[in-house]
Amino acid sequence: MKLVTFDGEAGRRIGVVSLDGGHVIDLDKAYAFLHGTSYAGFADMLALMHAGERGLDHARRMLEHPVDEAIHPASAVRLQAPVPVPTQLRDFSVFEKHLLQCGEAISRLGLSSNGGGPKAGPLPRVWYEQPLYYKGNRFSVIGTDTDVQWPAYSRLMDYELEFGVFIGTAGRDIPRSGASRHVFGYCIYNDFSARDAQFLEMPGLLGPAKGKDFDTGNAMGPWIVTPDELTDPYSLTMVVRVNGEEQGRGYSGEMQHRFDAMIAHVSASETLHVGEFLGSGTVGNGCGLEFGRFLQEDDVVELEVQGLGVLRNRVTRRTC
Amino acid sequence: MKLVTFDGEAGRRIGVVSLDGGHVIDLDKAYAFLHGTSYAGFADMLALMHAGERGLDHARRMLEHPVDEAIHPASAVRLQAPVPVPTQLRDFSVFEKHLLQCGEAISRLGLSSNGGGPKAGPLPRVWYEQPLYYKGNRFSVIGTDTDVQWPAYSRLMDYELEFGVFIGTAGRDIPRSGASRHVFGYCIYNDFSARDAQFLEMPGLLGPAKGKDFDTGNAMGPWIVTPDELTDPYSLTMVVRVNGEEQGRGYSGEMQHRFDAMIAHVSASETLHVGEFLGSGTVGNGCGLEFGRFLQEDDVVELEVQGLGVLRNRVTRRTC
Repeated sequence: MKLVTFDGEAGRRIGVVSLDGGHVIDLDKAYAFLHGTSYAGFADMLALMHAGERGLDHARRMLEHPVDEAIHPASAVRLQAPVPVPTQLRDFSVFEKHLLQCGEAISRLGLSSNGGGPKAGPLPRVWYEQPLYYKGNRFSVIGTDTDVQWPAYSRLMDYELEFGVFIGTAGRDIPRSGASRHVFGYCIYNDFSARDAQFLEMPGLLGPAKGKDFDTGNAMGPWIVTPDELTDPYSLTMVVRVNGEEQGRGYSGEMQHRFDAMIAHVSASETLHVGEFLGSGTVGNGCGLEFGRFLQEDDVVELEVQGLGVLRNRVTRRTC
Repeated sequence: MKLVTFDGEAGRRIGVVSLDGGHVIDLDKAYAFLHGTSYAGFADMLALMHAGERGLDHARRMLEHPVDEAIHPASAVRLQAPVPVPTQLRDFSVFEKHLLQCGEAISRLGLSSNGGGPKAGPLPRVWYEQPLYYKGNRFSVIGTDTDVQWPAYSRLMDYELEFGVFIGTAGRDIPRSGASRHVFGYCIYNDFSARDAQFLEMPGLLGPAKGKDFDTGNAMGPWIVTPDELTDPYSLTMVVRVNGEEQGRGYSGEMQHRFDAMIAHVSASETLHVGEFLGSGTVGNGCGLEFGRFLQEDDVVELEVQGLGVLRNRVTRRTC
């Protein structure tokens, strides 16, 4: 199933995309209609996650027998980020090729003159042994077809081709073997990055901060794809296009650590909550820096991940 | 004013501590009593922050003319963290002495054998030029007199003597000169750290992750002190005691970057939200690592910051 958050007549709604892709069925409205209640409890995606199987069963029924009163033509619906404010946002970094190519580009282009930060050469051993992550700003999430505001302090803007999972079931000390039960679904993630700010702060050893943290900097979408629809998340082709032209192509099969390993790692002595997002980090060939290219005003970036759709965002210096 | 979150008969409540420190006045109950309503809108500290001056005025009135029906003896009240789940949690690192002493200790004790991470020697130039931060886990916050659960994967547990501010008024592109308007109040922060996990992951250059992220790892409290009560946040003596014995003493005046600079830095092209927490990072002499000492099972750590009270937590391997 493809689950969406969209602008309805009465504000923010959630829905399921019809099998032919042509329609969106408003889940709250459909439930209220079927059960004669005014409040169905599916007010947003987090509520649907908390509802567990009851919510997913309802969404599946709406695919097979949609309630006419709750159907919208997909073309008339304006999508938002599937989870407009994730409960927490972690981004991992599990693609060796991306890191090696970034390190080489940084050295070749002389982009990190003040020491520290990524360098050309081998990755630290720990990178191969455990999934590493930092936490992003959960408030700067936007959906597809929404403009990214270029932060005023940056000159070198870049995209990052990623995908990730939302946690649907809370847990702690989750074994790898049971981790997939906790995945609500997958979506594409563009971790827009102000490279100059990032290069400046990385030698401080606290990870990326203003290099990633600016309003609208985390694009997610266009929808959440539930695990039953994604046969193998580790055999996906990932493509980025800028203004319609392919800039890079990567493969999810190259992940050094998979989502089950990330979930096991994070949840050690720590509770993972419903609505938390775990990103894969950038796939190899998945950012402009790897090729020494950066974004220009008004560039339109499309990330396409097999089975997950297309996430499209324009970068602009104009204030929205 | 000292504002607290506490366990009341009817669940979680917020209150103000009486001037003599002997009582806590339940703000929601007092408001409801005064105005004959059943719901006052001060259900938790975030609601009080959102209420702005109306909420603070009510709290001030309760200090002067408390409603008898809403008074609890302080000894009968069990404090929670002032904001049990902050909206977002950033921790800065602005004390040079702490970083230099950590670097020396790590080298001297041979604690970081796999390369990368903090080292003895000068700090990078950027550290002096801008406030650097990472984001912590907002779900692992506990209050005073609550046990910290030693994470199963760690052997080297440490405390960190810090204090921080809660954002009470949202904003973006906030100038340093106007930053103090956005501070709701101050509280003590103990950023408990699993040093072995932190040393392992820091060479990955994404900052601390499992070194800081485990349930109960972020102690805050005992209360929030409003800015009117803290004449100068940059002249505070900060002391840590373990099992009653002083282990270190530091001074808030040694901050390289102050909270106004942090607020200006973070809010550049980025919205700061009500309920976000910004920590100072560890004061010089403020952690055990600086002296090559680590915590033992059942140690009681007390952080005292002049004007902000005492935050007391026991570290235990037992599951609560």
